[in-house]
Amino acid sequence: MFTQINSSISRYVNFTPEELEIFNGLLSHKQIAKKTIMLHEGEKCNFEAFVVKGCVRKYYIDKNGFEVILQFAVENSWISDISFSIYEDCVSHVFIETLENCDFLLFSPETKEKLFEQAPRFERAFRILMQRNLAVTQNRLFHSITLTAEQKYDEFLALYPTIPQRVAQHYIASYLGISAEFLSKIRTRKLKSLNF
Amino acid sequence: MFTQINSSISRYVNFTPEELEIFNGLLSHKQIAKKTIMLHEGEKCNFEAFVVKGCVRKYYIDKNGFEVILQFAVENSWISDISFSIYEDCVSHVFIETLENCDFLLFSPETKEKLFEQAPRFERAFRILMQRNLAVTQNRLFHSITLTAEQKYDEFLALYPTIPQRVAQHYIASYLGISAEFLSKIRTRKLKSLNF
Repeated sequence: MFTQINSSISRYVNFTPEELEIFNGLLSHKQIAKKTIMLHEGEKCNFEAFVVKGCVRKYYIDKNGFEVILQFAVENSWISDISFSIYEDCVSHVFIETLENCDFLLFSPETKEKLFEQAPRFERAFRILMQRNLAVTQNRLFHSITLTAEQKYDEFLALYPTIPQRVAQHYIASYLGISAEFLSKIRTRKLKSLNF
Repeated sequence: MFTQINSSISRYVNFTPEELEIFNGLLSHKQIAKKTIMLHEGEKCNFEAFVVKGCVRKYYIDKNGFEVILQFAVENSWISDISFSIYEDCVSHVFIETLENCDFLLFSPETKEKLFEQAPRFERAFRILMQRNLAVTQNRLFHSITLTAEQKYDEFLALYPTIPQRVAQHYIASYLGISAEFLSKIRTRKLKSLNF
């Protein structure tokens, strides 16, 4: 059960078997069925979840009642609401929902603190993880202003190569901030340019 | 010279005088004149700069040749191009420019690694700093999609209370993604609502 998460976290620091044992002992395992809302707007997010299997989305509902997707998470990535909840100690403005049956390994803020106390070298791994996360978010902010819809779709494919086969097209449109019809046109145009 | 940066970094971890001595010994001090470009698009960003005194902006030039401001940094905050340069090891898409005469304390990627080797508890401080930075960036991404221009201006005032007195109005408009004329209307409307 811990093979994936251990090889993922060991990309940043070369941990000893003893350190990984502490890490694994503090994680809790959860299976959550498809279409379950794990976090509601207005709640405090008390988890950071590593996706062992499955697909999740993070979204909010805008002032016109439309869902806007901020992030997808698939195997070997983390999902949480770091921005509004855990670290600023206030309630969340977003929802987190499973799109497939999912297998998670989770930390609570308390177990994560215990981890840092018992095995301080995990500070380094999570610092680097946080930096990469920040780089991805800053890129998304930058691209949301600078790229055309077509370029955004290419970026999306590079970041999430398996998602188009796994989720409904309107979810991808919602992530890109365009209508499902426009996304469909972009996909047709891309197919044509590959064929001719 | 180190009073500000030491009290800033000690907000997250209670460092010993010995640890702070290592920290201070690895920083380099630089005074940079107003209107100097510290990082050009296409270069590799090789610094993380703590602002002791002054004001800086980070911006890019969009496809129509317009400058779009991503971030301001004033006293007691950090400026760098983490997203495109240091950690992904590629060149920058942004510019960093001083708006006032500035006093900086800087790390290079190499001196920062030395710091973590010699005083590993700084990993924790920089992990927390990174988390806060991520929270701010995610909020900005979220707000760039959800808020009206007026609400964005209020958010901006909360985040950067001293900036309106320090930089030209068109810089603020460029940060908010609106025209200088529209910003002027918002400010007039706000003033009126305070007076009546």
